[in-house]
Amino acid sequence: MTALDAVSVIRAKRDGAALTDAQIDWVLDAYVRGEVAEEQMAALAMAICWRGMDRREVARWTAAMIDSGRRVTIPDLDRPTVDKHSTGGVGDKITLVLTPLVAACGAAVPQLSGRGLGHTGGTLDKLEAIPGWRSDLTKDQFEAQLRDVGAVVAAAGPDLAPADARLYALRDVTGTVESIPLIAASILSKKIAEGTGALVLDVKVGSGAFMKTEEHARELAETMVALGTDSGVRTAALLTDMSAPLGRTAGNALEVAEAVEVLAGGGPADVVELTLALAREMLTLVGLDRVDPADVLADGRAMDVWRRMVTAQGGDPDAPLPVAAEHHEIRAETSGVLTGVDAFAVGIAAWRLGAGRARKENPVSAAAGVTLRQSRGDQVRAGDVLAVLATDDAARIPGAVDALAEAFTVGPAAEPVPPLIRGRVG
Amino acid sequence: MTALDAVSVIRAKRDGAALTDAQIDWVLDAYVRGEVAEEQMAALAMAICWRGMDRREVARWTAAMIDSGRRVTIPDLDRPTVDKHSTGGVGDKITLVLTPLVAACGAAVPQLSGRGLGHTGGTLDKLEAIPGWRSDLTKDQFEAQLRDVGAVVAAAGPDLAPADARLYALRDVTGTVESIPLIAASILSKKIAEGTGALVLDVKVGSGAFMKTEEHARELAETMVALGTDSGVRTAALLTDMSAPLGRTAGNALEVAEAVEVLAGGGPADVVELTLALAREMLTLVGLDRVDPADVLADGRAMDVWRRMVTAQGGDPDAPLPVAAEHHEIRAETSGVLTGVDAFAVGIAAWRLGAGRARKENPVSAAAGVTLRQSRGDQVRAGDVLAVLATDDAARIPGAVDALAEAFTVGPAAEPVPPLIRGRVG
Repeated sequence: MTALDAVSVIRAKRDGAALTDAQIDWVLDAYVRGEVAEEQMAALAMAICWRGMDRREVARWTAAMIDSGRRVTIPDLDRPTVDKHSTGGVGDKITLVLTPLVAACGAAVPQLSGRGLGHTGGTLDKLEAIPGWRSDLTKDQFEAQLRDVGAVVAAAGPDLAPADARLYALRDVTGTVESIPLIAASILSKKIAEGTGALVLDVKVGSGAFMKTEEHARELAETMVALGTDSGVRTAALLTDMSAPLGRTAGNALEVAEAVEVLAGGGPADVVELTLALAREMLTLVGLDRVDPADVLADGRAMDVWRRMVTAQGGDPDAPLPVAAEHHEIRAETSGVLTGVDAFAVGIAAWRLGAGRARKENPVSAAAGVTLRQSRGDQVRAGDVLAVLATDDAARIPGAVDALAEAFTVGPAAEPVPPLIRGRVG
Repeated sequence: MTALDAVSVIRAKRDGAALTDAQIDWVLDAYVRGEVAEEQMAALAMAICWRGMDRREVARWTAAMIDSGRRVTIPDLDRPTVDKHSTGGVGDKITLVLTPLVAACGAAVPQLSGRGLGHTGGTLDKLEAIPGWRSDLTKDQFEAQLRDVGAVVAAAGPDLAPADARLYALRDVTGTVESIPLIAASILSKKIAEGTGALVLDVKVGSGAFMKTEEHARELAETMVALGTDSGVRTAALLTDMSAPLGRTAGNALEVAEAVEVLAGGGPADVVELTLALAREMLTLVGLDRVDPADVLADGRAMDVWRRMVTAQGGDPDAPLPVAAEHHEIRAETSGVLTGVDAFAVGIAAWRLGAGRARKENPVSAAAGVTLRQSRGDQVRAGDVLAVLATDDAARIPGAVDALAEAFTVGPAAEPVPPLIRGRVG
């Protein structure tokens, strides 16, 4: 005789029970309706941080969050759908290259994305650095572009898993973000609601990532792969290194420019390596593993899709990107080998320069960010430029310089670098 | 660099840290000011349910709750002050006898009390069954009565540990009541603010008590004795049985009548035994252990103080108590020995008859309640009256009868009964 009231649900989880399907469905629906109060959901979220949720509970919780809004219906297409989600890192412009690349390989990528918060940038913010590009598509525009171009990156509307949006805002102010089942449910609810048939997760590990240890990252990856699978979405995950930034840039326009370099066949080796690894995972999930994405990148077919994708959303792929008014160089103090570039510090510096936001409603600067001139393993001399800071507002420079005070480590000799791809789950 | 913001305090406790004095002072003050939101305090309360608080934290938390309001200043008296607090049981009318008894033995008892909620009755509700008696005294009236009579039972004003009142209401709706440090802090904050020099705690164990097991009751008693001691109040505790109701009545006027029987030298043996045991603890704490409370009860001195105490607060000790309009008998179905009378069931029945309240703002019936005609160990025959239900409203009888469906256990032979006094801490 478990009555469906908030206190009985909270007490059940507090005392270590698994919540029933009926309890989960009721509590999320009642929360959205305002019958379960914010303080009750906060207590329940903390009890979940404490007691966890089992595989069935996470799947049901996720389904209930999806059912709080609408599911996107993917139109009949002549090709399979597959998407990628990254748990967020510094300089992570992979989506910009990967989406057109995988579309050019024969799949369709229907990506509904969010904005950046804190030290990691958001894909929409990056694409909005392109003059004219817009993220708010109607349902018809979304479907037409998916059919015609095979690649869309658009803003997730407020009707996509609205329970998740409310719960995330609550968790953010109540110290209940750090729960693997709740993180997994939050990410997957939006990806499942988006309607993709397959999903590859890029779970970041290291100082610049949300998960600082491989153990936690692996647990999150395993939880999400099980959850995707249980929800009817073919899912796999890579664990990838985020101890140093990806590529040489962190900032919106700077990252677009670097992504275009990669699409043109150049760009930093780590960005290329990770993009191809994720593309192979995505293509394998949808049975297109006979296509080699390296060829499709090299011969310009990915660049073609990129240009069509940008154009379809109002952007001009040939327009010059915004350039910051103010620049400031960070120089090496000693000579030796650059052994570390701290991803978290670079993320905070880019954020302070204006590339990111502290609150959802803040605007971001398209031009602001950090460009690294040296990478881990490079030989540097005292006085060499290690990084260039870019901002529209010179007053932001000292804070960014402070953030980078300990970011660069120079030693007598090269040190081993963790592999970019640290593991695979799925 | 622990910043004083709600999320950092919540995260610290969530991750198992002891909160600093500064964190505790800040979070409770900010909560009362509205800077820490209800959902943030709910998450913190659940984190405290999870991680607990150490002895220093509980003492600081309690002090911060006291500092949210005023402390009562006890006037200079020619005798020591001592109070008693019970964690709440069914038929617990001990305060009514104990307060005048201890005053008659030479101590002063300054009791600020609350109202009953749920299945256990409140002392103020019981005393209010006496025609004319009122609980709302001014500071001057309280002090004068303490000086002249030596015994006062009055309502705790809203300025006594207001943070506790708010936090308790929040815990009640967020499944965070069951935390021993928070329970201890809640009880002791009010008793310490009341200004008593010594305190005896009656920690109930059993079906009719909040603590169902002796292990939990002992942990609560130890936490409260340490907390009282750390706060400068000489404190001891008894663990006492609450598997069956105390005495033969549960209900406001019914319990007053039974207390007066005890003050007149009669009454049920268990009520007399527990009253004397608690009186001896109280007298010992204030150095009056040469006085035997049994003599003071037997020779009518306690009754004299009772009459003066009631009169001082506007009550007429000789006025007839209210009698219920409707009565209903519960009879034994089989013959044998009465081996159990479930305290919780009797408490619920009395509550349903009108003796208690579901919400703070509800009125209570003075006359409603349950009178037991047989006690554990008594020989009964099928058809004997086991209990009489009293209410102003006949429609309330079926619910009370339901509550008692399993309350009385009749067996072939007497069974061992737990001792009334199960242990002592202090």
